[in-house]
Amino acid sequence: MDASDKLASLRSEFTLNSSEIYLDGNSLGPVSKNVGVRVNEVINNEWANGLVRSWNNAGWMDAPITIGQKLAPLICAKPNEVLVADTLTFAIAKLVGGALKLRPDRNIVLTDVANFHSDIYIIEAVAKWAGRPIEVRTIDRNTLDQELNENVALVEFTQVDFRSGEMLDMKAITKKVHDAGALMMWDFAHSTGAVPLDVEGCDVDFAAGCGYKYLNGGPGAPAFMYIREKWQNVLENPIPGWLGHARPFDFELEYEAALGMRAFVTSSPSILALAALDGALDIWNKTSMNEVRAKSLALTDLFIAVVEERLPGVFEVVTPREHAKRGSQVALRHVESYAIIQSLIERGVIGDFRDPDICRFGFTPLYLGFTDVYDAVEQLVQVMQTKSYDDPRFKVRNPVT
Amino acid sequence: MDASDKLASLRSEFTLNSSEIYLDGNSLGPVSKNVGVRVNEVINNEWANGLVRSWNNAGWMDAPITIGQKLAPLICAKPNEVLVADTLTFAIAKLVGGALKLRPDRNIVLTDVANFHSDIYIIEAVAKWAGRPIEVRTIDRNTLDQELNENVALVEFTQVDFRSGEMLDMKAITKKVHDAGALMMWDFAHSTGAVPLDVEGCDVDFAAGCGYKYLNGGPGAPAFMYIREKWQNVLENPIPGWLGHARPFDFELEYEAALGMRAFVTSSPSILALAALDGALDIWNKTSMNEVRAKSLALTDLFIAVVEERLPGVFEVVTPREHAKRGSQVALRHVESYAIIQSLIERGVIGDFRDPDICRFGFTPLYLGFTDVYDAVEQLVQVMQTKSYDDPRFKVRNPVT
Repeated sequence: MDASDKLASLRSEFTLNSSEIYLDGNSLGPVSKNVGVRVNEVINNEWANGLVRSWNNAGWMDAPITIGQKLAPLICAKPNEVLVADTLTFAIAKLVGGALKLRPDRNIVLTDVANFHSDIYIIEAVAKWAGRPIEVRTIDRNTLDQELNENVALVEFTQVDFRSGEMLDMKAITKKVHDAGALMMWDFAHSTGAVPLDVEGCDVDFAAGCGYKYLNGGPGAPAFMYIREKWQNVLENPIPGWLGHARPFDFELEYEAALGMRAFVTSSPSILALAALDGALDIWNKTSMNEVRAKSLALTDLFIAVVEERLPGVFEVVTPREHAKRGSQVALRHVESYAIIQSLIERGVIGDFRDPDICRFGFTPLYLGFTDVYDAVEQLVQVMQTKSYDDPRFKVRNPVT
Repeated sequence: MDASDKLASLRSEFTLNSSEIYLDGNSLGPVSKNVGVRVNEVINNEWANGLVRSWNNAGWMDAPITIGQKLAPLICAKPNEVLVADTLTFAIAKLVGGALKLRPDRNIVLTDVANFHSDIYIIEAVAKWAGRPIEVRTIDRNTLDQELNENVALVEFTQVDFRSGEMLDMKAITKKVHDAGALMMWDFAHSTGAVPLDVEGCDVDFAAGCGYKYLNGGPGAPAFMYIREKWQNVLENPIPGWLGHARPFDFELEYEAALGMRAFVTSSPSILALAALDGALDIWNKTSMNEVRAKSLALTDLFIAVVEERLPGVFEVVTPREHAKRGSQVALRHVESYAIIQSLIERGVIGDFRDPDICRFGFTPLYLGFTDVYDAVEQLVQVMQTKSYDDPRFKVRNPVT
C-alpha cells in the first residue's frame, strides 16, 4: 500500500522523529520545512533589513488577507471570504457577536453539548454582550429538528467531533437551519485540511477553524474565519480595532469598518505566526483535499480493521465506520485510556487522551504511511497484552495534558 | 558622549543596517540576536522533536505567565500581575469589559480625545457589551478635574501620547481618579521599555502595553496586561476561553475561571510570537530602566538642541521640554511633514509621519548613540535646505503608512 501511495513523497517535507509514529497531528501538526524558511526570512530579512517599512513593502499589512486567499481553496471558499488572524476563540466571538445582530428578533443560540468546551464558553460570554437576553442552549445535536423554531437566531456546531471523530452532514444541517430562518456557523477545527469542505455548496454563513492542527501552522498558529460574501459589509465586528478601519492611518475618532474581510482584523497580528502558517500551507500546492481524503479513509479503515483483528472486543470503536460520518481520526474507548496513551507515548506512538475514557488517534495522510498503522497497532497490542498501562507512572494525571 | 556611554555595547545585540539611523523603534523595534535563537529553538527542537508534548515539557502552557514574570520588573509590577497574550486591543477589551462590572452603578468611561484611535474604538465597542447604557466620553485630558464625577466608572488614558510624546503624570492622575471613586487603566504602548513606570507606587488598577515597540518583540508581538493583585479573582474576563479555565483538560461544560492572571488567557497563544518576545526581553538583564531613561533624556535633549541650533524656527517642537513630561520620542510639527519623512527615509534616517503634520522620531537608548543624533539632524538639515521634500514622489501618500 505504501508503494502505491501517491502522497508518500510528501513525508520528506516534514521533520519527524524516525523512531516515533505521530498520531496527534489533530492536536498539533508537525513542522514542515517551509515553515523555518519563511519564519527566518521574516526575521533575517523583512524585519532585520526592512524594519517598519515591511508593513508595506513585505506585505505584512495584507498578510491576514493574502494567507486567507491561500487557505480558501481548502474549504471551497472564494478567495475574498477568508481571513487569518487571532485565535479560534476570538474568531468565534467575532462571528457570533456579529451574527446575533442579524437576527434581532430571535433570542436563542443552539450549540452542541459535545462541542469543544471553549466554543460553549465563548458563545455564552458573547451572548451577554447582545444587549438583549439571549438563551444559549447546549443540545444533543441529534435533537436539532425538535429544537429549531422561530426564536433560534444562530446554530453553532463543530463539523468533526473532537472526541469521537464523527463528521456531521454540513449540507443537510445548514439547510435545516436556514429553513427555520436561523443562521449557521461551523467550527472547522478538526475539519480543515482533514476532510473536504464545501462552504459555497453547503450555503454556510460563517465558519472558523484553527491553523495548528491539520494545517501544521505551529503551536498557537493563527485561526481563520470564513464569512460568506453576502454577509460581508453587513456583519459587524464586535471587537473592532484600528487595522480594520477603512483608513487606519488617518487616525479618525469615529470607527468606520473597512470593506470585506479586512473589517474583522482588530490590531497588528503576529507576522512571525502568520509566516509559519504561510509556509505550512505551501504543501497544498503538491496535493489536493480529495487525494488526502481518499488516503485518510484508507488509513482509518485499516487502523480499525487491524485493531479489531488483533484486539477483538478490547476497545469500543467510537468513531463511525460509515465514511460519510468519519473525520480523520479514530477514537477508541477503554476505562484505562489515560494510562494506555501514556504507555504508548513511552513506546514512541504519540496519540492523546480525551476525558473521560477516549484514546484518540489522528491520521494525517501528508506524513503517515500504511506501515505506520501496522506498527502503531503492534505497540498497542504490546501495551494491552503486557498490561504495561498498569505501571503507576502512567496513572498520575498531568493537570495540563 | 558615545565614549562614556555605558549602554553603547548593547548596540551589538541588535541587527541594524550600518548605513541607516533607525528612529522608528517606537513603531517597530529592531531584531536582537536572541530573538532568532529562541524562535529557532522552538521550531527545530521544541516543536520538531517535542511535538505536542512541548505544551507541558517546554513550558508552552505557562509561557503567557512566565514571560509576564520576566516583563513585570519593567513596570515595577509583582511577578504574578502581568500576563503576555493576544494583541493590545484585545487586552484593552478584556480589561475595560471586566472593569465596567466592578462599578455597576456608574455609567461613564472617560478617555482622551488624543488617545490612539484603536483604544477609542474598542472602548466604545466594549461599552455596548455592558448590559446597561454606558457613555464613552472622549475628553481633553487636561479637563479631567471637571469631568470626574460620581458617575464615572473608569478612566483610560495612554501614558505617553503617541503623537506628541507628552508623558502624563501617572501618580497624580491615578490618585484623582481614585479620589472620585473610579478605576484607572493605563495604555503603556509608548511607555514600556521607554520610561520608568511604577504601577505599584502609583496604585494603578489595570494597564496594557504592546510588545513590538520599545520591547523589540517583533511585528505584531503579543501584548501584555497588568492587573493589580487586589483585582485578580475579582475582575471577570469578558472574552473567556478554555485555557483560562481552572481545569482546561477536564472539558467541563461550565466555565470556571483559573486563579490569578491565567483567567485572562483565552485560547492557545502563538508560541513562536511568545518566543520572539521572550528572546527580546533578555537584553533587560544587561541594563536597567533607570539607565535607559537617563540616556533617553540625554538623546532627546540633544536632538531638540541641535535641531533648534541648525534649523531655527523651522519646526515647532511639540514634545515637552520638561523631562517629567517627556516620553522617549521627539515630535516636530511642519506642514510638509509627510514629504520630509519620505525624503529622510530615502537618505537612511527612518522616522515616521503622524497625521496631520507631525514628524515623529523615537530614541531608543539600547541601540542609538549620540553621533546618530548629529547625523540624523545633518540629514534633516539637508532635506530642509535643499527642499528635497518637494520631490513629487514624496507627496503621494501610501494608504497604509
